[in-house]
Amino acid sequence: MTGAKWHLPADRFFGPDPAQRRVAMELYQLVADLPIISPHGHVDPGLFADENATFGTPAELLIIPDHYVFRMYYSQGIPLEALGVPWGKGEQDHRKVWQTFADHFYLFRGTPTGIWLAYVFDQVFGIREKLSGATAQAIYDQMVEKLGSPEFRPRALYDRFNVEVLCTTDSATDSLQHHQAIRSSGWKGDIRPTFRPDDVIHLLRPNWRPNVDKLSELTGIEVRSYPALIQALEERRAFFKVMGAVATDSDGTTLATGELSPREADEILQRAFAGGATAEDAARFFGHMLMESARMSIEDGLVMQVHFGSYRNHNQPLFDRFGPDMGCDIPFQAEFTRNLRPLLNKYGNDPRLTFIVFALDESTYSRELAPLAGHYPALKLGPAWWFNDGINGMMRYRQRVTETAGLYNTVGFTDDTRSFPSIPARHDLSRRVDANWLAGLVVRDAVDMDDAREMIQDTAYRLAKQAYKFDRETGE
Amino acid sequence: MTGAKWHLPADRFFGPDPAQRRVAMELYQLVADLPIISPHGHVDPGLFADENATFGTPAELLIIPDHYVFRMYYSQGIPLEALGVPWGKGEQDHRKVWQTFADHFYLFRGTPTGIWLAYVFDQVFGIREKLSGATAQAIYDQMVEKLGSPEFRPRALYDRFNVEVLCTTDSATDSLQHHQAIRSSGWKGDIRPTFRPDDVIHLLRPNWRPNVDKLSELTGIEVRSYPALIQALEERRAFFKVMGAVATDSDGTTLATGELSPREADEILQRAFAGGATAEDAARFFGHMLMESARMSIEDGLVMQVHFGSYRNHNQPLFDRFGPDMGCDIPFQAEFTRNLRPLLNKYGNDPRLTFIVFALDESTYSRELAPLAGHYPALKLGPAWWFNDGINGMMRYRQRVTETAGLYNTVGFTDDTRSFPSIPARHDLSRRVDANWLAGLVVRDAVDMDDAREMIQDTAYRLAKQAYKFDRETGE
Amino acid sequence: MTGAKWHLPADRFFGPDPAQRRVAMELYQLVADLPIISPHGHVDPGLFADENATFGTPAELLIIPDHYVFRMYYSQGIPLEALGVPWGKGEQDHRKVWQTFADHFYLFRGTPTGIWLAYVFDQVFGIREKLSGATAQAIYDQMVEKLGSPEFRPRALYDRFNVEVLCTTDSATDSLQHHQAIRSSGWKGDIRPTFRPDDVIHLLRPNWRPNVDKLSELTGIEVRSYPALIQALEERRAFFKVMGAVATDSDGTTLATGELSPREADEILQRAFAGGATAEDAARFFGHMLMESARMSIEDGLVMQVHFGSYRNHNQPLFDRFGPDMGCDIPFQAEFTRNLRPLLNKYGNDPRLTFIVFALDESTYSRELAPLAGHYPALKLGPAWWFNDGINGMMRYRQRVTETAGLYNTVGFTDDTRSFPSIPARHDLSRRVDANWLAGLVVRDAVDMDDAREMIQDTAYRLAKQAYKFDRETGE
Repeated sequence: MTGAKWHLPADRFFGPDPAQRRVAMELYQLVADLPIISPHGHVDPGLFADENATFGTPAELLIIPDHYVFRMYYSQGIPLEALGVPWGKGEQDHRKVWQTFADHFYLFRGTPTGIWLAYVFDQVFGIREKLSGATAQAIYDQMVEKLGSPEFRPRALYDRFNVEVLCTTDSATDSLQHHQAIRSSGWKGDIRPTFRPDDVIHLLRPNWRPNVDKLSELTGIEVRSYPALIQALEERRAFFKVMGAVATDSDGTTLATGELSPREADEILQRAFAGGATAEDAARFFGHMLMESARMSIEDGLVMQVHFGSYRNHNQPLFDRFGPDMGCDIPFQAEFTRNLRPLLNKYGNDPRLTFIVFALDESTYSRELAPLAGHYPALKLGPAWWFNDGINGMMRYRQRVTETAGLYNTVGFTDDTRSFPSIPARHDLSRRVDANWLAGLVVRDAVDMDDAREMIQDTAYRLAKQAYKFDRETGE
Repeated sequence: MTGAKWHLPADRFFGPDPAQRRVAMELYQLVADLPIISPHGHVDPGLFADENATFGTPAELLIIPDHYVFRMYYSQGIPLEALGVPWGKGEQDHRKVWQTFADHFYLFRGTPTGIWLAYVFDQVFGIREKLSGATAQAIYDQMVEKLGSPEFRPRALYDRFNVEVLCTTDSATDSLQHHQAIRSSGWKGDIRPTFRPDDVIHLLRPNWRPNVDKLSELTGIEVRSYPALIQALEERRAFFKVMGAVATDSDGTTLATGELSPREADEILQRAFAGGATAEDAARFFGHMLMESARMSIEDGLVMQVHFGSYRNHNQPLFDRFGPDMGCDIPFQAEFTRNLRPLLNKYGNDPRLTFIVFALDESTYSRELAPLAGHYPALKLGPAWWFNDGINGMMRYRQRVTETAGLYNTVGFTDDTRSFPSIPARHDLSRRVDANWLAGLVVRDAVDMDDAREMIQDTAYRLAKQAYKFDRETGE
Repeated sequence: MTGAKWHLPADRFFGPDPAQRRVAMELYQLVADLPIISPHGHVDPGLFADENATFGTPAELLIIPDHYVFRMYYSQGIPLEALGVPWGKGEQDHRKVWQTFADHFYLFRGTPTGIWLAYVFDQVFGIREKLSGATAQAIYDQMVEKLGSPEFRPRALYDRFNVEVLCTTDSATDSLQHHQAIRSSGWKGDIRPTFRPDDVIHLLRPNWRPNVDKLSELTGIEVRSYPALIQALEERRAFFKVMGAVATDSDGTTLATGELSPREADEILQRAFAGGATAEDAARFFGHMLMESARMSIEDGLVMQVHFGSYRNHNQPLFDRFGPDMGCDIPFQAEFTRNLRPLLNKYGNDPRLTFIVFALDESTYSRELAPLAGHYPALKLGPAWWFNDGINGMMRYRQRVTETAGLYNTVGFTDDTRSFPSIPARHDLSRRVDANWLAGLVVRDAVDMDDAREMIQDTAYRLAKQAYKFDRETGE
């Protein structure tokens, strides 16, 4: 198979029927060159803070920081260390890491990761040869050369990728120094922080107490009571907003929303300070803080995002050795009808609130989330995401959500990636899948072509722009 | 887009492959003109009681009574009042209501509601222009004119739609006066009541006590004990049967079946009369009454229907303002394997019982319902329904149910609608989706054409006729 | 319809698009003639112990022992006795049984059972006429004649079917006399036992105590304590291994894994001996024995299989009359993320363990099982199975599992059948469905043809051979 090339024809990922394919192509072409709105992700803002920042070695670019990549090798018995993980402690010879990566690259056959990586090699780096054990070192050489050139610095790629806005995810206690640096550098790129308070509201997280101390320090508010916590969070939200934030995000590892009295909330908080908070305390407190988050969002206008249903660090021995983000966050059964009811009953009828829910449990799409989003004014559904962002996963999302919620209670595509070079690959895949989905509706006469032309622009660009309120700022 | 027309080609909703499309059309044509059996729905029988009854304004026909329609507008922040809801209290100018409806009609892109409404405009009313803000008032004028003509009275449309039988849903305490009026009018239409005892067996419903009093009054039985309740229900079932009923229906908001001793049942009932019944009491009583319903059905031959798994009136503030049926009944996780076991173990082996289950939780189709229906003689599966009656939802139902339960443990299509003019649209969509599903099996050689010709007639007409025992009455 | 023939064209079960069909055929032809690896099933080894063994009557071959077949008739109100069930007690005239079978054969339209049976008639027995009431007796005559010929003895069909290895399922207390007889007969067929300890580790099974006594007797170890039980099981595993076993299997009717101290385990066991074990005791003991099974597998190299989530003998009255395996094992909701965590945390990082999970709850495929298998080195996913082994069920499995777990954390096809003559039908269907699935990826450019050619050989042959370690023995 030496000599094999990446195979990325212009009409890739469209269904085989010639009529559907023609329509899909016509729809795709309407959006192929639209700018990228990336309202939710995990790219390191430090990449853009310094105009001379680089991505490091090919292994540092594509393997070591991406647990979505290296988990697949680990699942086949390959030690994480052989993949250079954890960064700086695993294998130091990145050529060796690369060879291991290439030797088993066949593991990604039929996966979205395989599709994104093919795009990165072929479209971003202009490398036509397919990665394999035989081609590994030659490709490594080409990558190193490109990564050393000005055209492959983060800011250059940002421009080349036609990114209109990129939101990062940042702890409530982050100083946002990189965002500050970007702003004061005069660079035109639009990089915005997202307010993530999890480290100070999940009471049982390992570093909760030091994080609360940091919050006190940053705000000058001594956070030792529930009212002080609320005040400090509101202050940080205001700061994030000044720094360009349009949204908040939280990790719903427990699912139940529900309101506590200020006294109950404070009692739980005091138990946490005393080191005696229980799991139930933490769950109730978090469920209450989601309610508070909704209230604050109505007041300050920040879009509220919650992603629900991942059992973090499922593999305890691995966590003990290497810490978080080792590819072992595993979804579990979600329930939204009862769990979101308190929040939706109190704030869901208020059109000033935009509450975007991301779910990992597909069985909730048609059963719970689409009916809820098809009723409550505040609720919008985040896209197929994380484990569900492949061709089939995204198609299932459209097919299960749209008939009940319509298109207009969804919010467009979210790449949610740490891997900046994969962003255009992910948006391109999403745009193609949506074009093909719509083409399927068109050739079945379930929507007409006029409507489909609008819908593809909605999914690719407009819905994200509207949901995250970017349109209000630019006056569009 | 002024000038845009509805797009309803003859082969709509079939897959794009030419071979599959030819087979789908051939199968569809076998059933396109078959009469409509509508064994389960919510059309107001009063529409047919008086030969001169009319549908009112276009807004009264299509918007105000249909929470499946107006919920979509509400989800986008449009007040219910602007859509004329609640009837008689919302916006009184129905031209304004219509304009709002038309301005945001794009919300139904890709939804079954959009498909049904296109059919109603184009096929029922002969209006070719697509509804939009620009065409709203002209279309309103045309609708008003048609609705005033004799051809658009309910009885005339009943004949034009080729309805063979239409079952309504009626409280156990309904006098069935409209059904009486229809029968004594000499009109040939076959409108039948369905016995729904929920108002007197769900012990915690707001008007449970007055409804029980009404039951006493109607039957002359003082319903103050469990035996008296059973006796009164049996008497009402007999009355409904005399009035043409072939089936009963219940709303399974709790899922567990289970038998109580007569003494336990009476104790719970007495607590309810004393105002002290708990939620657990109510659930146990309902689960027991399902068992009793099965026993009665074996005795009197009425088909037993239960639709499981909707959280009614999820939006409490909206319910407090406007009451029920405001588009906020939300499905939740269902469980049938354990919950139906008591009933199926006691009555499910008896072929005299027909027990039809409707489910909203699709994850139970292949996991629980198809295996149960593929074993127990009494159990049959209701079709994809409510939130699942779109093209994709119906296809998922066939694909998940048939391989395990076969076709013959299902009962054909149920429109379940309040909107009489949408009935032919819904049956037509269902027939097209089934024709396309079967054509897909034919072109894959998974069934042969001889079998497919039988199967399409089964799904479109025969299965419903047999399951609800209409064939026994006509001797067919 | 007299004169109707089975319809099994060479390209059956492929999608209708001509391009996809061409690719599917090319891929299928790569594997159509590969030998059959059948690593998990329920064929009676006695069929092969005696070279002159026969299958009995056509009803004994296809109906009476196969609850997947007769349940469909029972679901339609046909008494089991009319189908000759239970064996030897139901209808004794097998021509009558056959006529009933044929009269209602239409019940299998659109089901995998219908597809398998068509293959058995047409491809295995060379009978071209479709089975119906009219053709029943003539086909019975042909079947009787063939079944009496040497070419239709089990060993002859084993060779004709090109079976490379066939694993049976055998109780831990089975003497393996049939396997002994096969080995000493000099026949070349590779029939292997699989170690199934359920009868001695599910403490509440009806015959648990006599089975433990039998275990004592077979091993010479007095199994009256937890350490003795472990020792006896290890001894039996060693014996099974000597007899060719490569794997163990367990029926996970409860789902939670978890470790007990030896003292806790012994206390529960003593309660079981005293007749006082509770359901919770039994569940905890089983969950612990799964952990022990993993430990033993790491030590002795046997592959560990667990199939999760069936409510056995759901129909109590039928069980009371006829015993187990009457078509009323019904799946229920499964949960793996939390339930498998103890086992996976302790043993799942060890690449020496191969732990194959079979699931009946499809909603866990993408939500839990694919992410778990895409992370833990020891975990592999069994295929779509039992109620999910039809065309649609297998396709859903591929589409939900592959994008997250890849292909290489799955283990190829498992027929899991009691019906030996259906084995080639089942493997052929699986190979065709996989070829069509891969062709769909190829024509969408989601995998290239080089990769697809490898993948089809992996799914049809290599993955099973590797997962069950047959490759290690033959040195391939």
